[in-house]
Amino acid sequence: MTTATTHRRVVLAARPHGLPTPADFRLELAAVPEPDEGQVLLRTLYLSLDPYMRNLMDAAGTAYAPAVRLGEPMVGGTVSRVAASRHPGFRVGELVLANAGWQDYALSDGSDLTPLGDLAQPSLALGGLGMPAFTAYVGLLDIGQPRPGETVVVAAATGAVGAVVGQIARLKGARVVGIAGGADKCRYAVEELGFDACLDRREPALAERLAAACPDGVDVYFENVGGEVLDAVVPLLNLGARVPVCGVIAHYNEDAPPAGPDRLPRLMATVLQRRIRMQGFIILDHYASRFEAFRRDMTQWIEAGLVRVREDRVDGLERAPAAFIGLLEGRNFGKLVVRVADA
Amino acid sequence: MTTATTHRRVVLAARPHGLPTPADFRLELAAVPEPDEGQVLLRTLYLSLDPYMRNLMDAAGTAYAPAVRLGEPMVGGTVSRVAASRHPGFRVGELVLANAGWQDYALSDGSDLTPLGDLAQPSLALGGLGMPAFTAYVGLLDIGQPRPGETVVVAAATGAVGAVVGQIARLKGARVVGIAGGADKCRYAVEELGFDACLDRREPALAERLAAACPDGVDVYFENVGGEVLDAVVPLLNLGARVPVCGVIAHYNEDAPPAGPDRLPRLMATVLQRRIRMQGFIILDHYASRFEAFRRDMTQWIEAGLVRVREDRVDGLERAPAAFIGLLEGRNFGKLVVRVADA
Repeated sequence: MTTATTHRRVVLAARPHGLPTPADFRLELAAVPEPDEGQVLLRTLYLSLDPYMRNLMDAAGTAYAPAVRLGEPMVGGTVSRVAASRHPGFRVGELVLANAGWQDYALSDGSDLTPLGDLAQPSLALGGLGMPAFTAYVGLLDIGQPRPGETVVVAAATGAVGAVVGQIARLKGARVVGIAGGADKCRYAVEELGFDACLDRREPALAERLAAACPDGVDVYFENVGGEVLDAVVPLLNLGARVPVCGVIAHYNEDAPPAGPDRLPRLMATVLQRRIRMQGFIILDHYASRFEAFRRDMTQWIEAGLVRVREDRVDGLERAPAAFIGLLEGRNFGKLVVRVADA
Repeated sequence: MTTATTHRRVVLAARPHGLPTPADFRLELAAVPEPDEGQVLLRTLYLSLDPYMRNLMDAAGTAYAPAVRLGEPMVGGTVSRVAASRHPGFRVGELVLANAGWQDYALSDGSDLTPLGDLAQPSLALGGLGMPAFTAYVGLLDIGQPRPGETVVVAAATGAVGAVVGQIARLKGARVVGIAGGADKCRYAVEELGFDACLDRREPALAERLAAACPDGVDVYFENVGGEVLDAVVPLLNLGARVPVCGVIAHYNEDAPPAGPDRLPRLMATVLQRRIRMQGFIILDHYASRFEAFRRDMTQWIEAGLVRVREDRVDGLERAPAAFIGLLEGRNFGKLVVRVADA
């Protein structure tokens, strides 16, 4: 297999204030690296774009991953093909799940690679059979624990995580109310994903509409957005409700605490009086114990047509920054994936 | 046994705005009621004063108990003596744990009474062997789950709940840092209750002092106050920390959400990134499953001198309103109990 001598990569050019702009990224050319003994060279086929990446653009980084350094490639999960191998465990041509980041080529010592075999649709490893769906599975089933007849609310209802949350909740016999941005997404959630209802967050009076859509209150709120959706849900939480906290995308772009009023006291009073369990989780913690069960269940559900996975595919690495900014604004429709190369 | 024909009761005269004032209560005389068939007449010996009562003064009441109606006696747990009985299960002279409220006499059909036998210090049934200590036991052990060597933080450290939280945490091998109002309370928490440290919340720079007192971060924060203590704790919470939420006394007197900045986004981001489990609980839910274990353990700990219980005793029903207002301001020192009568 021949490889180029230079390749493209998208590096962090500046740390954003608020929503990132195209100027915070820079597409540049670099020499394709050479694998040392024990390493493989990876060719990126698909790059996953996910909201957590916004946190890694801040100097502080996160509790689970360090910040991307200025001038370094943006990080990200990928489906990659082994282009050259000096590692006994990987042969050239093999397809792997990797963390190659926003670039055409990357090196790996193999420790972070998962062989994908002959997966019919490899990009599924970044979505419906990958991290976002696994996040939905663990958060909903292990923390949310919906029971038949209970009401589950999830925002970003057609996104990579929310769509799977809602569909699994339906499989478990819960009533599912989604929230999404736009009439087309809401229609898709109800007609294609089988949600019982889906509310357009761009229309006025979200709180009133959500109350009307949840006449028996809310038993599980899968928190992946924060902001006004959380505000609308809190008054509806039932006794003993569970709130898995997987993301607060509405706040990722905030530099400082927003102006008041202070919503914390009301939340705490609700947590107390309604005996709410609110629990944050980072999916990295759960691979060892739960990934096999997830892969088995999810493969079966997808093959049986019980869970549908929609991909929002963008062509070309150079379009990753704009697509990522759109993701933070809720402009994606399905799991956002960049097709970087065909083979 | 002879009984008076009139008795005193403290009724809710007005719904408070913010901190209650004496004018929100009214001491009045009423006829001592006559028990019907199946009822007992109870003579109040000790009345418990607890922060939750503030919530019941608001028209909305709570999810676990309705509001006190205007003109009706304030509710409250009591140690009472059976003064007259037309109930086959209770004989005159018997000592019972009851919910007779802020008055000299009350009727009961027996369903809410617990015989106290010959308890040496009957008022303990309202504190160290009663609801506040049971709250500490369930919240700390079942939700907080401290492990040896972990750091537990509790505010209102010499109060009826906080003092027991800290002492049980010490018994379980945790390091305990208390927060209390005043140097005398802090000294007591360290010297008498065995806390590893106790910070005076009235001194400046609480957040910095708490960080210094918790060099390994905070694994369990028993939330019983809210407000600035929560603010100081949040940045120190470790990965996987647990936050049992038993009360938010700092906010009970608020009519409306306080001015900003909005502290909710920071809390949610912390819950997510540090995988925090925050769980509200109302002790009423746990009597059936956990009270016997609590009573057995706690009796043993008190008798062995492993847990100390301090009572802040006020003499006379007429002093209940002022004592209760003081409780909301943190002026009590130990479990607040009103001695209403001697026998």
